[in-house]
Amino acid sequence: MSERIGIGMLGYAFMGKAHSLAWRDVPAVGPATLPQPRLVTLWGRQAARLEEARARYGWERAAASWEAVVDDPDIAILDNAAPNHLHVEPTLRAAKLGKHLFCEKPLAPTAAEAHRVWQAAENAGVLHMCLFNYRFMPAIREAKRRIEAGELGDILHYRSRFLISSSLSETRTKAWRDDKAAAGSGALGDLGSHHIDLCRYLAGEPRRVGAMTRLAVPADRSGQRIETDDAIVAIAELANGALATLEASRIAGGHLVTSDVEIDGTKGSLSFSMQRLNELRLAGRDGGFRTIPVERPEDPFYGYWYPAGHPIGWAQSFTHQAIHMLEAVAGHHKIAPLGATFEDGYRCAEVTDAILRAADSGRTETVSYRDR
Amino acid sequence: MSERIGIGMLGYAFMGKAHSLAWRDVPAVGPATLPQPRLVTLWGRQAARLEEARARYGWERAAASWEAVVDDPDIAILDNAAPNHLHVEPTLRAAKLGKHLFCEKPLAPTAAEAHRVWQAAENAGVLHMCLFNYRFMPAIREAKRRIEAGELGDILHYRSRFLISSSLSETRTKAWRDDKAAAGSGALGDLGSHHIDLCRYLAGEPRRVGAMTRLAVPADRSGQRIETDDAIVAIAELANGALATLEASRIAGGHLVTSDVEIDGTKGSLSFSMQRLNELRLAGRDGGFRTIPVERPEDPFYGYWYPAGHPIGWAQSFTHQAIHMLEAVAGHHKIAPLGATFEDGYRCAEVTDAILRAADSGRTETVSYRDR
Amino acid sequence: MSERIGIGMLGYAFMGKAHSLAWRDVPAVGPATLPQPRLVTLWGRQAARLEEARARYGWERAAASWEAVVDDPDIAILDNAAPNHLHVEPTLRAAKLGKHLFCEKPLAPTAAEAHRVWQAAENAGVLHMCLFNYRFMPAIREAKRRIEAGELGDILHYRSRFLISSSLSETRTKAWRDDKAAAGSGALGDLGSHHIDLCRYLAGEPRRVGAMTRLAVPADRSGQRIETDDAIVAIAELANGALATLEASRIAGGHLVTSDVEIDGTKGSLSFSMQRLNELRLAGRDGGFRTIPVERPEDPFYGYWYPAGHPIGWAQSFTHQAIHMLEAVAGHHKIAPLGATFEDGYRCAEVTDAILRAADSGRTETVSYRDR
Amino acid sequence: MSERIGIGMLGYAFMGKAHSLAWRDVPAVGPATLPQPRLVTLWGRQAARLEEARARYGWERAAASWEAVVDDPDIAILDNAAPNHLHVEPTLRAAKLGKHLFCEKPLAPTAAEAHRVWQAAENAGVLHMCLFNYRFMPAIREAKRRIEAGELGDILHYRSRFLISSSLSETRTKAWRDDKAAAGSGALGDLGSHHIDLCRYLAGEPRRVGAMTRLAVPADRSGQRIETDDAIVAIAELANGALATLEASRIAGGHLVTSDVEIDGTKGSLSFSMQRLNELRLAGRDGGFRTIPVERPEDPFYGYWYPAGHPIGWAQSFTHQAIHMLEAVAGHHKIAPLGATFEDGYRCAEVTDAILRAADSGRTETVSYRDR
Repeated sequence: MSERIGIGMLGYAFMGKAHSLAWRDVPAVGPATLPQPRLVTLWGRQAARLEEARARYGWERAAASWEAVVDDPDIAILDNAAPNHLHVEPTLRAAKLGKHLFCEKPLAPTAAEAHRVWQAAENAGVLHMCLFNYRFMPAIREAKRRIEAGELGDILHYRSRFLISSSLSETRTKAWRDDKAAAGSGALGDLGSHHIDLCRYLAGEPRRVGAMTRLAVPADRSGQRIETDDAIVAIAELANGALATLEASRIAGGHLVTSDVEIDGTKGSLSFSMQRLNELRLAGRDGGFRTIPVERPEDPFYGYWYPAGHPIGWAQSFTHQAIHMLEAVAGHHKIAPLGATFEDGYRCAEVTDAILRAADSGRTETVSYRDR
Repeated sequence: MSERIGIGMLGYAFMGKAHSLAWRDVPAVGPATLPQPRLVTLWGRQAARLEEARARYGWERAAASWEAVVDDPDIAILDNAAPNHLHVEPTLRAAKLGKHLFCEKPLAPTAAEAHRVWQAAENAGVLHMCLFNYRFMPAIREAKRRIEAGELGDILHYRSRFLISSSLSETRTKAWRDDKAAAGSGALGDLGSHHIDLCRYLAGEPRRVGAMTRLAVPADRSGQRIETDDAIVAIAELANGALATLEASRIAGGHLVTSDVEIDGTKGSLSFSMQRLNELRLAGRDGGFRTIPVERPEDPFYGYWYPAGHPIGWAQSFTHQAIHMLEAVAGHHKIAPLGATFEDGYRCAEVTDAILRAADSGRTETVSYRDR
Repeated sequence: MSERIGIGMLGYAFMGKAHSLAWRDVPAVGPATLPQPRLVTLWGRQAARLEEARARYGWERAAASWEAVVDDPDIAILDNAAPNHLHVEPTLRAAKLGKHLFCEKPLAPTAAEAHRVWQAAENAGVLHMCLFNYRFMPAIREAKRRIEAGELGDILHYRSRFLISSSLSETRTKAWRDDKAAAGSGALGDLGSHHIDLCRYLAGEPRRVGAMTRLAVPADRSGQRIETDDAIVAIAELANGALATLEASRIAGGHLVTSDVEIDGTKGSLSFSMQRLNELRLAGRDGGFRTIPVERPEDPFYGYWYPAGHPIGWAQSFTHQAIHMLEAVAGHHKIAPLGATFEDGYRCAEVTDAILRAADSGRTETVSYRDR
Repeated sequence: MSERIGIGMLGYAFMGKAHSLAWRDVPAVGPATLPQPRLVTLWGRQAARLEEARARYGWERAAASWEAVVDDPDIAILDNAAPNHLHVEPTLRAAKLGKHLFCEKPLAPTAAEAHRVWQAAENAGVLHMCLFNYRFMPAIREAKRRIEAGELGDILHYRSRFLISSSLSETRTKAWRDDKAAAGSGALGDLGSHHIDLCRYLAGEPRRVGAMTRLAVPADRSGQRIETDDAIVAIAELANGALATLEASRIAGGHLVTSDVEIDGTKGSLSFSMQRLNELRLAGRDGGFRTIPVERPEDPFYGYWYPAGHPIGWAQSFTHQAIHMLEAVAGHHKIAPLGATFEDGYRCAEVTDAILRAADSGRTETVSYRDR
């Protein structure tokens, strides 16, 4: 086995768990030639939970501050799985120290800050990856491959919806995501960013957007004021002329989680549902959708796992993501175009900002991207 | 059997066929107490095809002009199944003569004209029904019943899409629907009106809309200019505060016909797909969708037909519609709220107009309804 | 329009209604060159209901006995839609009189009697059609076409299940189908015969069968003894070596009606569900099922109806069947191989008999067919 | 953290990988009170691959013989993930040494041998678990819970099918599973045993069976003779009177992997498809199937993982299985009834044997179970 690459991670909760398990799986399933990850330092806010997570997931040490993680000379990659408001500062500091950057989405609360983070990473010359993990599901990779091979022809239409019902819970208590200052936006930032990235990745770059929002449940059960919207609907025109609709709702009463993406082109259409992530649905001009199973050894991601026909889960996309990062560190390939870079994280933030402006202004807003 | 009600019909093509078969089925499957339809006069533009249709469908006579149908003293109901541009004038004339009105959607090319038709019908004191036949599918009736019973709680979200691929056909030749003057609008008027009516019927009245359109195929294969859009995406806010998205596309490459409607409320969600019209999908707060078969004898519409479990087709909704009209003529009930009246036809036109204005202006447009 | 062909029909209930509506639709949707049906005489057991049905469905006269229908010189086709125990005798009498025969399945309660009916029809030189209406659904015709074109390769496996829950009804009262003498068999004869015919039509001729039955509900709610089985499971080997399973159950608690057929071959598989009769599901060796919509004008059956994308219902298969019979009478084609003849009705009875013998004997039974 | 339990494992291939990853995940996701596994010794046939697997999966040492694993004083559990012909002897030896037993299915090639293994484990007083991992998928556990709560009423019908197309591969070369002596049986043993266990677990104990087999592809591409069947169809009567069908095929041309189970009872029906393992489909007497998502934190298995709505994969059932074993070793509960013991492994073998006898004899065969 080759040299090991030190990882430091911020966050031990939902994302921290998914990331930890991914790093742990890399030696077991990744390519034999891959440099192996070394789980060096973990940081989180509550000491007891931090120590428990450290021990459970196998990190060598717990750090007393996020700065201690970033500054640790043993780490080559900063894995930022902390809550959203901690994405910017630690990432900037790590860039300055020459660490490679592996950061959860959204990259930053605003496009301006996202731009700053991206530029810092570029200027530091480090690798940077923004974790839009949908790209690392076999069905999405298969979708990308087929679109690039021209199976859909010219892309004409993108639609997505992300529907949950959490805001309707009778036991709801106000959280950071309900606070405008902390969360920035509501359903859009919380749910929609994966779909914005998939729109850019698979269909095209939004250039004009319109939107409406809804705050249906303005207080939690103890009467605390909720400030962020529960639902947003947006329409867009893409750079290639395609139209798009994006919906994100936390007030879809009958939906546990529905995260669906559909694309129409001149030669066919495709459809993907995150709840059935081992399937890609594809139709040609004859109008019959085919359910393509992607749990096949010849699939570049599924191939890490088992013989054909054994569905993988959502979490396995994080393993693929970790392998991709380590391969990039080893120089086997670049982060892009398969993975999302901080430029993608920044561009996604521009779209988010424009959608929120449009919801405010009641008019179509242009999305302007800075090239660097 | 009771007295017979004379029908005169304009149009012998697609809609004329569906309507004829519906009237023919009424005696065989309708309630025993129903007055029976008498298929008196039929009009259409081409004499040879008119005579063939007359004989095939069993109309007593063919008329040389649409005026001759309207004026025929033997008819009590004018069934207007003619092309869209012939909806207004014959209907106005029939109203003046005191005929009951049974008119295909859209009621008129603009809201102003639709308003005039509605008012004429009201002033004449005749029955008027605008044929939004989706309302007469058992699954939609079941959806309405469950929404009214509160199963979905407060309605928070409506979404629909109508996707076909006709504009991408390699054999496309310009038709009246591609001409702005003749068709008024593109994909929206052609496809979207059923979904606008369902939004109003099941979810709520649109009060603000935003939209974008696309003309992707600007010429037919012989180079003739296409003027109307191929696709439209719209967002809306309903009077009850709910959000909505509406999409209509004739450039959805992989879709033969997809006509889907979904509604979310505080207590659950529902989903309907026209291609599986014998099924209603419903989910409560526990997030599992149940596929409810509606081909059951206890269903008020399906009950006209067969024992449980024998799917009916799209065309049978027209039979239900014809029965509904005859029952209204017999005084058993009013057209509304189960059926759509010309007021509904008018209100649908206001929404259509506002969506087109919004697509033009690039801003949110208000939908204003006149109460009479 | 050409000459008219006189029809006499036995039975006015479920099947009588479906047949009547089919005959009534023929002039409206059938080929222009087709001889038209004339609905001459109808017979049924209860006078009041008979007269109501006659008037509703448009039969010229009601007959006092089934013999009067058969003997009526104005009829050229006997449509036997009577209860099962009246399939044999009237059909034999009509054959002797040179009437063409259009008889509901099952042709007869035993293979021996079915053989007699078939031979009588053959000897009389009349046309004979046994009404396995699934063959007249567009999806089944499409399945047949693709199998014959070799898309599935060699057929290796057939499986079907017909599941309802009627025997579990709390309001169940003993009916003729619960009486061994009247019904012959239980779930198999009641439900399974369509699937036996489809096995023969699409996959191959059964030559060896094994079976087990279950009588789970031995009495109705008033304590009357139920004699026929509620469920049967059978396995078979076909003449081409393929294996098969057939299940029929009236005690499938959660099933309103499920009638599914699946076929596997060396090159692919197909799947059909009667509840979604406008869809055929097909997979090639790459293992992804495609849902093929069959509501397209180019389909030979659907083509009678509407533009693409308007699902038809179960009942429309009877219209296709009626058209097929009239075309055969007009000499446009033979009943077979598209339609089932009495030979098919007989062969189906041999399979049924062998399955019942196998359930009794607890061993594999051979199916012997007489060639004439 | 409490004491660690030493594991020794036989086999490093498909099953060895799945088991290794499961053990590795236990500390990260299992209950905090759980004794932790220590991956001590691994054995497999080829030295180079063994060493690679050892290093990848994190086993402390590689053993030169399976005996060396069994005899290793550091192991408390023998994890037998070796090929089928190595299930009996090592397990017997480990029992004698007082090791707990964690053995892949099938327990043994014949019922007689399976009985010997079961009795040896019982007599040794060790824990024994036969790895029918379907039991450890959340949807199957949910199915079990609902059946026990009476939601389906009395069970009346069980049906399952396991369909793949491997025997049709053009690159097929004869393997151990194609050799009668090595494999014992064909498609049944290879695919059907999970379904036999689920029949016993969820529906009832088979007591009479009938069956037919098919050898469709009798040679591989180089002409080597294939001896075991490609497909089997079986019918059964369960001890509670329910009927059952079981199908297993390696010649289902269009199926990558289809592994479906359905159960009908007096009050409802359920359906499970392994390819959509995060869903359980359930219908009550009203006949509408509901798709119940099981990826919810309140689910006893899914609860080890993530917040609601993140599908898990097939491999995660092995983690649940490993946790279950360790909890049993810690005395938190017994292996049964949630997990399968060697008694279940033995009983499954009796059913398999009876099905093969029935396929041979062409008659219904009785399944006799020894109680100890």
